[in-house]
Amino acid sequence: MKRFLLICLALLLALLIAACGGRKSTPTPATQQSGLPQDALTIAQERGLTPADISAALKTYVPSGKWDDYLMFTSGGHSGNLIVIGLPSMRILKHVAVFTPESWQGYGFGNKDIEEMLDAGNVDGVKIRMGDTHHPALSETAGDYDGQWVFINDKTNARIAVVDLRDFETKQIVKDPNIISNHGSSFVTPNTDYVIQTSQYATPLGWDYAPIEEYQEKYRGMMTFWKFDREKGRIDMEQSFAVELPPYWQDLCDAGKLVSDGWAFCNSFNSEMATGGIEEGNPPFEAGVSQRDTDYLHIVDWKKAEEVVKAGKSEDINGIQVIRIPTAVAENVLFLAPEPKSPHGADVTPDGKYITVAGKLDPHVTIYSIDKIKKAIADQNWTDDPFGIHVLDFDAVKHAQVELGLGPLHTQYDDKGFAYTSLFLDSAVAKWKLGGDDPAAYVLVEKIPVQYNIGHISAAEGDTVSPDGKYLVALNKWAVDRFSPVGPLLPQNLQLLDINGEAMQVIYDMAMGVGEPHYAQTIKADKIKALNAYPEVGWDPIKWQKSEFATAAGEEKVVRNGNEVEVFMTAVRSHLTPEHVKIKKGDHVVWHVTNIETAHDATHGFQLGGYNISLSMEPGETASFEFDAVNDGTYAYYCTEFCSALHLEMMGYLLVEP
Amino acid sequence: MKRFLLICLALLLALLIAACGGRKSTPTPATQQSGLPQDALTIAQERGLTPADISAALKTYVPSGKWDDYLMFTSGGHSGNLIVIGLPSMRILKHVAVFTPESWQGYGFGNKDIEEMLDAGNVDGVKIRMGDTHHPALSETAGDYDGQWVFINDKTNARIAVVDLRDFETKQIVKDPNIISNHGSSFVTPNTDYVIQTSQYATPLGWDYAPIEEYQEKYRGMMTFWKFDREKGRIDMEQSFAVELPPYWQDLCDAGKLVSDGWAFCNSFNSEMATGGIEEGNPPFEAGVSQRDTDYLHIVDWKKAEEVVKAGKSEDINGIQVIRIPTAVAENVLFLAPEPKSPHGADVTPDGKYITVAGKLDPHVTIYSIDKIKKAIADQNWTDDPFGIHVLDFDAVKHAQVELGLGPLHTQYDDKGFAYTSLFLDSAVAKWKLGGDDPAAYVLVEKIPVQYNIGHISAAEGDTVSPDGKYLVALNKWAVDRFSPVGPLLPQNLQLLDINGEAMQVIYDMAMGVGEPHYAQTIKADKIKALNAYPEVGWDPIKWQKSEFATAAGEEKVVRNGNEVEVFMTAVRSHLTPEHVKIKKGDHVVWHVTNIETAHDATHGFQLGGYNISLSMEPGETASFEFDAVNDGTYAYYCTEFCSALHLEMMGYLLVEP
Repeated sequence: MKRFLLICLALLLALLIAACGGRKSTPTPATQQSGLPQDALTIAQERGLTPADISAALKTYVPSGKWDDYLMFTSGGHSGNLIVIGLPSMRILKHVAVFTPESWQGYGFGNKDIEEMLDAGNVDGVKIRMGDTHHPALSETAGDYDGQWVFINDKTNARIAVVDLRDFETKQIVKDPNIISNHGSSFVTPNTDYVIQTSQYATPLGWDYAPIEEYQEKYRGMMTFWKFDREKGRIDMEQSFAVELPPYWQDLCDAGKLVSDGWAFCNSFNSEMATGGIEEGNPPFEAGVSQRDTDYLHIVDWKKAEEVVKAGKSEDINGIQVIRIPTAVAENVLFLAPEPKSPHGADVTPDGKYITVAGKLDPHVTIYSIDKIKKAIADQNWTDDPFGIHVLDFDAVKHAQVELGLGPLHTQYDDKGFAYTSLFLDSAVAKWKLGGDDPAAYVLVEKIPVQYNIGHISAAEGDTVSPDGKYLVALNKWAVDRFSPVGPLLPQNLQLLDINGEAMQVIYDMAMGVGEPHYAQTIKADKIKALNAYPEVGWDPIKWQKSEFATAAGEEKVVRNGNEVEVFMTAVRSHLTPEHVKIKKGDHVVWHVTNIETAHDATHGFQLGGYNISLSMEPGETASFEFDAVNDGTYAYYCTEFCSALHLEMMGYLLVEP
Repeated sequence: MKRFLLICLALLLALLIAACGGRKSTPTPATQQSGLPQDALTIAQERGLTPADISAALKTYVPSGKWDDYLMFTSGGHSGNLIVIGLPSMRILKHVAVFTPESWQGYGFGNKDIEEMLDAGNVDGVKIRMGDTHHPALSETAGDYDGQWVFINDKTNARIAVVDLRDFETKQIVKDPNIISNHGSSFVTPNTDYVIQTSQYATPLGWDYAPIEEYQEKYRGMMTFWKFDREKGRIDMEQSFAVELPPYWQDLCDAGKLVSDGWAFCNSFNSEMATGGIEEGNPPFEAGVSQRDTDYLHIVDWKKAEEVVKAGKSEDINGIQVIRIPTAVAENVLFLAPEPKSPHGADVTPDGKYITVAGKLDPHVTIYSIDKIKKAIADQNWTDDPFGIHVLDFDAVKHAQVELGLGPLHTQYDDKGFAYTSLFLDSAVAKWKLGGDDPAAYVLVEKIPVQYNIGHISAAEGDTVSPDGKYLVALNKWAVDRFSPVGPLLPQNLQLLDINGEAMQVIYDMAMGVGEPHYAQTIKADKIKALNAYPEVGWDPIKWQKSEFATAAGEEKVVRNGNEVEVFMTAVRSHLTPEHVKIKKGDHVVWHVTNIETAHDATHGFQLGGYNISLSMEPGETASFEFDAVNDGTYAYYCTEFCSALHLEMMGYLLVEP
């Protein structure tokens, strides 16, 4: 700025001298006029920022104390959790533990309610404490995010979890009793009546043993419709149902909306039913599953399916109502349509009229029309697959195709009639025009490179009936040289794109130094109505009611009954009461801690040395843990959240007599 | 910018007309001159950025593909890990799993080497898989960070870990056999000969049982000097030793450097030897430990201690050589000095001449002089504490005091002769002048508010003999209203300060959405020489040598010996070989996977459904896991790192016959 001012003044002077021998004048300081700081240019030059860098910096900087406009909920991948990121700052605001323990949240380190919830996700008695979260789904009302719940799957063990956005904590984990691996999950119907999940790697139902040679006869896929009870805020297994599918390796899904409400669409990528076995000289899976030019889009009439179940035409398989394939065909619940090669995303347009499928081994995206699908069904314009499922005629249901480039994966939409598709092999985002009724009007508009190997993308409210546009995040899988070296295991690179203007612009590179986000949904921040403290002191966050073990100040006690010891403790700045807990070796101890504070951010943690116990009590929370005093000795417990100047003094001794 | 241009042109025109009737002239466009983008002002105005915001944005923005200047290694607190943050962007570049499992890193979910390392940290047979990391210490050579190792403690269980900065992975966990809780850890001597650790909450040695009434007689503190063997890259318990201390709740430490090399300084905050018991009507700990106006700075001559141990004057206690208090006194190993109330930080100045102690219940920092300490010892200018330890005369060893404000905690230094101290109760950072030999020249220069409740601070290379200045990070404990609501459990707020100029400026608020960082060290990024791939294909990262289970392409096999099955697998884009693993229920399976890739970022993950197995194999790595096939069935295993367009096809079936 200074330099500019000088140049400007010099110019003035020169001109005046040249013109008429030097009268002087000084304009008001440039900064007062422009609102730009004196040192802006100096800083930019010192830091080597280009004009594009400078506008990107100004577009993404959220000043101290100001809030972000959007919250992006992204899966953590094999970290098994959810990660909440603010846009446009791209700051990580929170990790939400889901399938994997996180000691700082007191999640999976003794908390009884949480252990019980996690144990509900165990597999045939094997304790499961990891996961591979893929596709978060925000709850919707009338096709718009309502900011109340998030659902997320665990691909590795075919489980699904419910997270409450009042406290951003996991409330339920459900194991699918028929499949061992899911992927096309989670996707909600427009009013969150159901959470849709599909299997990925086919196995016999209930993952029973069957030789791989019996793949076509015995291995199956599954589409599960988990009934969500909004009142209870839980998935209701009793009211849920599933549709049996061929072993085609179903992939991603989307629920219809508006004109396509009542339908669900899922693609697949192993219609070859390849079974691998490279070690036996068979083609490896990646070749075997990529032989045919088309796979199958699965088209399910879930409202019809509901009726079929109500009519008692389903079977109870391992505790869930399943519509078998022949019934699904006979009742017009399930149809297939060819889709170009090895598709990944199936994404319904905001108006619900069209479904975009991206075949990752085909340079095009293919747009299907729900009207044409309904017509093809009415016209019985189909052939049958080996399982007798009607395969709708491709040309009859295909509405348009747009050639975008190499490796199209996933599509999002904006508020201006554009679609955005990630291109894995091109490492690019393609922007293209939705042409409405006119197939010829679907055209590629622009492509922008991203770094590197982009997977999914997430646009602001991009999965709703009313997308916001503005921002799009590229969830890139490889970072390679983008960040300072931190060893062989690299962060991912999440790039924020400004999609407001004529041309797309990458405005921020965000290192994701944990897990591997797959899919994300981005909601307007002000739609979230999170609590700062629990409704009452002594609250049980999972049962969402006052805990029977809530302890008030002055009511702390240690109760012994034989070798059963129960501790009722309070936590408040800056002491834990009691400060001495005296037990005997061999005692079984149940221990309740109530954070009796209500102040915003007055969280207390609790860890007990030598016994692997870690709790976190947010304002008002009561948490319980239990352990067997297998060793005698002198142990320390203390608050792990720096809560006051005397936080280090907030401790006590557990004395275990021999 | 536009507006400024127009005003400028108008001004020119007006002047020319006034001067001599309008000759025209157009200067080159302002943006070309200034290097600022046309739309800078518009963006700033639309986003409500003040001039201060704009310069902050420009100071912290790191453009796409550019690297950060510094890496800050911060503890994760009760998340039990280390977190690496780039400065000035404040992006999280990596989580390093240390005491707590992290499934995405394949850490603690079956990997045999890692489980074995974690089990070395178990306590009396209780499996410990959590931690409370507090104070990371970067390895030093001649008092400067050398970028090779990081050490970090677990306060809850009194453990210490060694992290290798070639691959940013934990290599060793050591449990202190005599204490159950540490805090003053980790601090390295100037050439990383020793890693210093002190106990926090006193217990009988070996945390044996003793009634709290026998506190003064039986409870003890401990300062442990862990010998670090640079050749092996491991702590050598055999060569390590400890100094027994009174039960004063030792807190933070620092190692002397240059003129004070050979000494260690640790403060304490319970010289009252209060034992709490609020439930019995005793004063609660936070009151009991805060009765006296002074506590004790512990001054240890560790080079003398080394000689004492070599001379056989120490005792083997639970497998480590311990210098008992009477010996430490007799041999001039241990001295005390009064320090104002409930101190937290003890920080040696870059020149090694002075030690700054911040007493959190005293508004001053107190500066001690190593020369005055040595003189007081020579003059035997002391009284004795209840344990016969010489307490040096306060006025004899005190060099200066500076009144800073409420709740001084921790001090860092810059390259211009200034010190920076965090003020917890004031929620501020104080900048003050180091006055050298002249006590009167130590003066407060400036205070700047931070949000909120600041704990530690970290300045660029701030703990070395040659600090860089430039940046200082405030590790604030409370965020309250600083970020969009994400439920009752809030992120911390790490604030980046520009300390280059005359006045300090807060230039970035970083949400820390996981754990609670306590202490951090900030190193010049180019000092880190991290690997992009392991030295050889088939590498064991913990043994740091080629694995005996390394498997080359074409040598994959499944070997059965009775019901013992051993699998030798390779991983490469895009298949796992073998793709079928056929075993029987009841088999014990040992399974090795080698990532045979060497390309940068070509990491493969591996998860097995239903058996809680999660691995991560960076380029060249061989990892092993084992499990009992307790259930029969059909299971899927697959790559969890999106590695290619055919990543979803990178899978196989585990077939377990009944």
